[in-house]
Amino acid sequence: MEIASYFPIWDKLSPDQQHAISSAAVRREAKRGEIVHNGSVRCTGLLVVASGLLRTFILSDEGREITLYRLFERDICLLSASCMLPSMQLEVTIQAERDTVLWIIPPDVYKSVMQLSAPLANYTSELIASRLSEIIWLMEQVLWKSLDRRVAAFLLEESAIEGSDSLSITHETIANHLGSSREVITRMLRYFQSEGMVALSRGTVTLTGRDKLEALAAS
Amino acid sequence: MEIASYFPIWDKLSPDQQHAISSAAVRREAKRGEIVHNGSVRCTGLLVVASGLLRTFILSDEGREITLYRLFERDICLLSASCMLPSMQLEVTIQAERDTVLWIIPPDVYKSVMQLSAPLANYTSELIASRLSEIIWLMEQVLWKSLDRRVAAFLLEESAIEGSDSLSITHETIANHLGSSREVITRMLRYFQSEGMVALSRGTVTLTGRDKLEALAAS
Repeated sequence: MEIASYFPIWDKLSPDQQHAISSAAVRREAKRGEIVHNGSVRCTGLLVVASGLLRTFILSDEGREITLYRLFERDICLLSASCMLPSMQLEVTIQAERDTVLWIIPPDVYKSVMQLSAPLANYTSELIASRLSEIIWLMEQVLWKSLDRRVAAFLLEESAIEGSDSLSITHETIANHLGSSREVITRMLRYFQSEGMVALSRGTVTLTGRDKLEALAAS
Repeated sequence: MEIASYFPIWDKLSPDQQHAISSAAVRREAKRGEIVHNGSVRCTGLLVVASGLLRTFILSDEGREITLYRLFERDICLLSASCMLPSMQLEVTIQAERDTVLWIIPPDVYKSVMQLSAPLANYTSELIASRLSEIIWLMEQVLWKSLDRRVAAFLLEESAIEGSDSLSITHETIANHLGSSREVITRMLRYFQSEGMVALSRGTVTLTGRDKLEALAAS
């Protein structure tokens, strides 16, 4: 896939602008588990997911994590290019959840085109606004939705992403997605097991009561 | 003050674009406590604070609140014009915390200029990115910072805004800012009182131990 195909407004860029971006974009592969962008290293660039799955998360001083959002095929991440926007003061970490192929667009190149191109600047506004919406939604979940519902929703989401009822995932990984601790997640999953919603074995959570999980997630 | 003075990129707009915005902007006054934008009514428009203080918050189904950010003099709020950006799917409420004078720019006018003007589109990106940073910061506070530190920081912030150590504020209002409940805040303030950090009387919280509060907020 060409880099052009990831930008719906590509045709509204001039040939020079198109060339600037496509010639500067670098294709990269990241293995499952690899850190693609590290919050304290400010400006990796814009990330475009060609295939695979990335996870964007924040990290506390004590090493706790919560997933802000995931990046699927064709998704574009701007938070890894925060130097482009002086008012974007944040430190997020981005990790490959699967083997991933991505394009990296250097922030200075993207910024120089964006400053002249209203279509690209407006498209960028849309991207940031979309992340803002997701994060406000997440804030509502964290504040007002009980953890049992959030765990149920997460297991169903994972199952949809993996296309399987049997998930190879540790309790710690679930905790890191949801901003919780391993102990709390283990207790919750044991309760789910006693209710017939999941079956637990080492490193695997199998969904056995999808209806109950769905009812809980939607409650 | 002219509407022009609130936009640092005003000079980069064409005379027609300047005229479109300044002739469409409506000056409005809002009394302390008045709801200026209601999440379920989608598109009030861009809000520009000429004087006063606004509070942007989200509301749970059960009526709980948390303040996302406050808008001071010269601040611009885009979240009240979410229809401008189709990917901005969110419902926030905006309330005057003091008697406030604001300009409202109709979303269709702002959008039509933004779509043609790279400077305005880039400025808009900056505004959204800045809110995104604030909300991720807030998420970190809610997830990882204990409530006693958040209450201490809030009291110090209020004191700075009001220019006084004596705050006319109810426990419920503090709870609504911080996403907590009145009961929890009352318990916390009584503990602060026993530690000599505040003195409580009906409808008033007086800061009596600023050093201790500052140490707690920074811990």
